[in-house]
Amino acid sequence: MRDVYLDYAAATPVDPEVTAAMLAYLTERFWNPSAPYAHAREVRDDVERARGTVARLIGARPDCLVFTAGATEANNLAFAAVEGHVVVDAIEHESVLACAATHARRTVRVGPDGLVDPAAVARAIRPDTELVSVELANGEIGCVQPVRELSRVVAAERARRLEAGETTPIYLHTDASQAAGVLSVNVATLGVDLLTLSAAKIYGPKQVGVLWASEEVRLRPLVYGGGQEGGVRSGTENVAGIVGFARALELACERRAEESRRLAGLRERLREALLARVPDMVVSGPKNPKRRLPGLLHVAFPGVEARRLVIALERRGVSVGTGSACAASRMRVSHVLEAIGMPRALAEGSLRLTMGRGTTEEDVDYAANAIAEAVCAEVSRRTVHASSIVAPDRKN
Amino acid sequence: MRDVYLDYAAATPVDPEVTAAMLAYLTERFWNPSAPYAHAREVRDDVERARGTVARLIGARPDCLVFTAGATEANNLAFAAVEGHVVVDAIEHESVLACAATHARRTVRVGPDGLVDPAAVARAIRPDTELVSVELANGEIGCVQPVRELSRVVAAERARRLEAGETTPIYLHTDASQAAGVLSVNVATLGVDLLTLSAAKIYGPKQVGVLWASEEVRLRPLVYGGGQEGGVRSGTENVAGIVGFARALELACERRAEESRRLAGLRERLREALLARVPDMVVSGPKNPKRRLPGLLHVAFPGVEARRLVIALERRGVSVGTGSACAASRMRVSHVLEAIGMPRALAEGSLRLTMGRGTTEEDVDYAANAIAEAVCAEVSRRTVHASSIVAPDRKN
Repeated sequence: MRDVYLDYAAATPVDPEVTAAMLAYLTERFWNPSAPYAHAREVRDDVERARGTVARLIGARPDCLVFTAGATEANNLAFAAVEGHVVVDAIEHESVLACAATHARRTVRVGPDGLVDPAAVARAIRPDTELVSVELANGEIGCVQPVRELSRVVAAERARRLEAGETTPIYLHTDASQAAGVLSVNVATLGVDLLTLSAAKIYGPKQVGVLWASEEVRLRPLVYGGGQEGGVRSGTENVAGIVGFARALELACERRAEESRRLAGLRERLREALLARVPDMVVSGPKNPKRRLPGLLHVAFPGVEARRLVIALERRGVSVGTGSACAASRMRVSHVLEAIGMPRALAEGSLRLTMGRGTTEEDVDYAANAIAEAVCAEVSRRTVHASSIVAPDRKN
Repeated sequence: MRDVYLDYAAATPVDPEVTAAMLAYLTERFWNPSAPYAHAREVRDDVERARGTVARLIGARPDCLVFTAGATEANNLAFAAVEGHVVVDAIEHESVLACAATHARRTVRVGPDGLVDPAAVARAIRPDTELVSVELANGEIGCVQPVRELSRVVAAERARRLEAGETTPIYLHTDASQAAGVLSVNVATLGVDLLTLSAAKIYGPKQVGVLWASEEVRLRPLVYGGGQEGGVRSGTENVAGIVGFARALELACERRAEESRRLAGLRERLREALLARVPDMVVSGPKNPKRRLPGLLHVAFPGVEARRLVIALERRGVSVGTGSACAASRMRVSHVLEAIGMPRALAEGSLRLTMGRGTTEEDVDYAANAIAEAVCAEVSRRTVHASSIVAPDRKN
């Protein structure tokens, strides 16, 4: 039996080159970067070199980066920088929505394809809005948001405030965790003021993230202590994790263009194979390929329970997600599918299929077959079950 | 030239068994513990098994543990659980002092040996005190605080409040990060309500910590998101780090008794060798061996600058700290030495020498010799320099 993993949006394997780069810091290079002797200064230099690498790859200044324990903490740090009103869209990651909930806020609706309308964000901005936060790419239905256009909206509001003599700052934050493996995350091109990245989504280690904030933004710590990371994020540095993150981002940038093309091809192959076998399958996300993550296919099967599919598929060696891993573990219906207006019954029949570096055409063909079989088996089971309920007396 | 590391209190090398336990999760076992399929459930089980191991080793319930990105975050989480007045002592870790500074507080003085007097804590507790936080062992001068006695003080106050019909809760927190390698950290024996541990101080990975809180304590999250760790600490779990932490604590517990004895012997050997060569050396910390960390020797050399010693010693292959690594990097005089009343000039001539699993008698003898030589060279340099200032004309 094949073992096919189709949940790269939940977790990516660590690239062997990343593991190799980290290993020295989990063995002989264990020194505390804040200690005063030569060995410690060496690892301090290694951390700063990694910071420089990440900064260069996103077009930023190294001293504007804060390494965190993942994207969730980075998003929280971004929101902690402001006190006033915030604007988010309805399909943000749970960490962003939860942070927004601690502020006065406006949640902007998204279209049925999940896309945020810049005009809607413009209307949502109030004179006291301090932060707009829109994910670069959504990890569940794969839409790539028009962040560049949003930056123009924010710039226009900034210009209006300047003109009007208003001094309230306004910043644009984007969580680019799901995007960094396949899209450019250059902060100048995106036109953002704050950007979140996660190593765990780009073949790096778990619990390592970064928040970049432009020099305009004054970050406020969430935890207090020894004053590491410019006083914003105390605690002895995760040297192995930071070095691994930098290597992971380097590899992601090197392979981005080719990998995006390859993944887009695999996604189409999977979509076509599934549609051929299950014609009533519903595909979510934007139609425009430029507006979606190349390796993500979100599908829903009418009349089928995704939870049962997951189990049927794992027996065939295929690992698939039903949405974001966080929500999945609590078996809640996804807020993303609710926001794009998917009926609850259909949402409960949804799979998020995400491909990555390890995925081959053979994997896709095997998975398509397994998924189609599982869906058909599930449909006929329900049909039999339904007819047995409708006409129980016929059985005798 | 020998390479002798004497700063185990700043960072411990990762035990090869710990690295081995972690490696699977940095390679093939990369799945997101929150995902719904079999592979993911396996790593979820691995995380829960690790949680169970840590819980058993500290005599606690697994569901009362929260894994964090290190001791600093764990300490912050402990303080975030209360809103009222707090009591700390003057030589706590910077993360505890910084958290205390966000509350109404009383900072209790310590004796010249660094020990906290339980009677002083009793006097500092007010009717609105909600948290007392005293480190189990101090990482700079090595004093082991009377936490068990402090738990009786807190219990007495709790009884008084119950009697008086007062409903304000009061908890005892201890940061046991520096102690766990050599002292028991059983929460029941210590009588604490909250306990912090760090993997990085017990031959585990950096940026992995745990906060244990009794079921009485209601923790409040510092970061919001997917709701991992019982909703208290969101973000995809650091599977490798958590598994590594559990293995590190297991090894620490297995080796604790023997290692403590061995380290106490090495410390005495180092102290005696140094005193024989530098008779005016000042040793800090408690005289009673039961009240000090076995592998830590804090010494000060009158008329010598520790910063110069660090550099002279690194040329001889000996890595030593001047205090806590956080403070050292900013070249501040340690708040711990200030609190025990050490004159500033003497504090600036202080070294913290900490031994660990890798330290041998040969290392100690080599280091003692190197330190004594460096101190003597420094003293004569200053004497020559001083005499050349006092009587410049004699030179001609």
